[in-house]
Amino acid sequence: MPSFRSWHFNFSSRSLISPRPTSLHNLRPVIHRNMTKFTQEPHKLLVIPGPIEVTDEVLYANAHPSMSHMSPDFAKVFGDCIRMTREVLYSKEGQPFLISGSGTLGWDQVSANLVEPGESALVLNSGYFSDAFADCLQVYGAKVDQVKAPVGGAVDLGDVEAALKAKKYKIVTVTHVDTSTAVLTSIKDVAAVVKRVSPETLVVVDGVCSVASEEIKFDDWGIDVILTASQKGLGTPPGLSVLVASPRAIKTFETRSVPVTSYYGSWKKWLPIMQTYEKNTAGYFATPPVNLVYAYHASLNQILHGSVSLEERFARHREVSQRVKVEAEKLGYRGVPLGADVAANGMTALYVPEGLKPTDIVPRLLKKGIVVAGGLHPAIKEKYFRVGHMGVSVVDQSRGDIDKVIAGLKESLDEAKAEKA
Amino acid sequence: MPSFRSWHFNFSSRSLISPRPTSLHNLRPVIHRNMTKFTQEPHKLLVIPGPIEVTDEVLYANAHPSMSHMSPDFAKVFGDCIRMTREVLYSKEGQPFLISGSGTLGWDQVSANLVEPGESALVLNSGYFSDAFADCLQVYGAKVDQVKAPVGGAVDLGDVEAALKAKKYKIVTVTHVDTSTAVLTSIKDVAAVVKRVSPETLVVVDGVCSVASEEIKFDDWGIDVILTASQKGLGTPPGLSVLVASPRAIKTFETRSVPVTSYYGSWKKWLPIMQTYEKNTAGYFATPPVNLVYAYHASLNQILHGSVSLEERFARHREVSQRVKVEAEKLGYRGVPLGADVAANGMTALYVPEGLKPTDIVPRLLKKGIVVAGGLHPAIKEKYFRVGHMGVSVVDQSRGDIDKVIAGLKESLDEAKAEKA
Repeated sequence: MPSFRSWHFNFSSRSLISPRPTSLHNLRPVIHRNMTKFTQEPHKLLVIPGPIEVTDEVLYANAHPSMSHMSPDFAKVFGDCIRMTREVLYSKEGQPFLISGSGTLGWDQVSANLVEPGESALVLNSGYFSDAFADCLQVYGAKVDQVKAPVGGAVDLGDVEAALKAKKYKIVTVTHVDTSTAVLTSIKDVAAVVKRVSPETLVVVDGVCSVASEEIKFDDWGIDVILTASQKGLGTPPGLSVLVASPRAIKTFETRSVPVTSYYGSWKKWLPIMQTYEKNTAGYFATPPVNLVYAYHASLNQILHGSVSLEERFARHREVSQRVKVEAEKLGYRGVPLGADVAANGMTALYVPEGLKPTDIVPRLLKKGIVVAGGLHPAIKEKYFRVGHMGVSVVDQSRGDIDKVIAGLKESLDEAKAEKA
Repeated sequence: MPSFRSWHFNFSSRSLISPRPTSLHNLRPVIHRNMTKFTQEPHKLLVIPGPIEVTDEVLYANAHPSMSHMSPDFAKVFGDCIRMTREVLYSKEGQPFLISGSGTLGWDQVSANLVEPGESALVLNSGYFSDAFADCLQVYGAKVDQVKAPVGGAVDLGDVEAALKAKKYKIVTVTHVDTSTAVLTSIKDVAAVVKRVSPETLVVVDGVCSVASEEIKFDDWGIDVILTASQKGLGTPPGLSVLVASPRAIKTFETRSVPVTSYYGSWKKWLPIMQTYEKNTAGYFATPPVNLVYAYHASLNQILHGSVSLEERFARHREVSQRVKVEAEKLGYRGVPLGADVAANGMTALYVPEGLKPTDIVPRLLKKGIVVAGGLHPAIKEKYFRVGHMGVSVVDQSRGDIDKVIAGLKESLDEAKAEKA
């Protein structure tokens, strides 16, 4: 039971969320009052590409007393979460689905609700998570073709165009940021190609590692589905599958010729529930993760009505990412993405310098209280590691998280080199 | 943002979990130290049949700082949860699956992993949740027959025997406690009939509203699958699907002739992960709900190594249930279950007295700070309501939760009668 061993409380009195003078997105009242505040236990700095560090307010909301999922109080909070999810994506038209589950459940939702058995899907493959999405689609009966990118690269748009011209696809899937390689694919450009070449094909984005750390204009770019999870840019503990579907995607679902091939992930079950909760009244299909919804609500409030605007949040992710990447390369690490145009802003994947292994660096960072992630992409697994920089670690510079990461990268490398010398 | 408005902290210093002198199940060290303790915000008493009231220790664990799901510290906690889940069911052989999701996901797991498309399933139907399980099985291609019980009754064992003799079924499903009616079905007796008449048929128990509030001897009774969720007897916030499969069920899964028909719910994906975590090392398929796993760990520790033994816990549920039912009937309410032998021990479903409606009682209870649940079974929805009595409300008598419920039932009825008079 190490989890209890050293826990205690700290007290401090400060405002929960600072007011921000102006914002286009400030549609709800800003929280601004002094309160005695919960402070989370000191712990190692978690800078993997999700779960990420979360704020005290989010954790305290996760410790909300038990509430009925059918209560009007909870229904209002759930309704807010639906509305605020849209705002993070600059969407007015999208239909959010908030379901108890991991991000992976989003793949099942797409595969079971939008692609009928025997229909074709084109997977734009930029790493480990594209392979897995393809696997999921096939489980539900889709015929999958893939356009593959080299390790560290995004798919070539010419290849995408050629594939779309050669065959009719029900959906195209693209991983916005592949968590295994930190490769960013321009979903705006991909969507534009699809609209031009095969406008009836739905554009499905795996945004697990991009929502709320990369700018996404869901409506403007013509995205049909984006799926994500609570524990990355959205700054909430894991356990909530977050998906937004366009009116066109909903219509595609509604005009299916065969029944949906999942029960738990069925939009037939969930769509009326989401519509009900959006009216701030409760509906029941399966019990939502009530406490986590409170936590998600707290985080969305901080993202949309916190100390920086949504635009500034994305700008800070770009700045911090740039800084981490430049400093790391100065030290001798090398980025996995093949160019700055395909480098994610919420995480960094770094090859260790020649002659070293990730095991020379990662455990040293851990000793300094910095938790990064090992490699995941099978082709390069023994050569690189991954650092996340999303959410509060990026936005609240007073925490010093990024300084600590950069210093850790330097010191660990110095120590490793000294040992080898 | 009502969730933040009145939150604050209370401090008290007491031991987290009291030691218990002897226990067969006390396989792990007892936590016993004084610590400054988190106390949850005062709130309305939640006595619906789940989510239930949870302890401060569980909520505090849910506010654990972010942790990597791949860290050795978390892997050990997850491993403990797997082992302790078995203990709650007196099982040595069962294989637990702990997956981010609601209890409903357990139905998908059974339907997609154990029943191949076109195979037959027999659903013993004792209410709303049996209808839903049948619906789920059909989504995955099962041919479903049902043995139906009258409203408030359990299925007749003679009917079950006749059905099993008339046709070969891959699985029989039984709802241990139907949350819509508070009807308890003797799963021990059902399993015995199945073993005798059709021994190759798997016995699948929906234990969403029974695990940890009703005694279940998984191995001894020959149960093949029990599925449940974190937010009822297990005393944890919602968001964790908990399922245990027998070696026979695992073998049935492993010898399928066609691939599993779900991705997110696939045991092919999850079985190696559960086996890896049980070795206290991390595995990855989809991100587990890390904080909730800490909360579940805290609750399982209290259930297995807390102030009362597991046996005493079940005995207290029976005693409290008896008391609630007797007192309610004295007042003029009438139980939905048709007899004491089919009445659940973790919840009570009550018809309101003649001339009254649930809306005469439930809002009055709410005004007194007592949250009960309305009716759910379509046939009697406007005539009854439901009260949960599980977990800490039952075991920690010093809270006075049950006294408050009984007093509330009396006062609300007196008020309603006075208004009508």
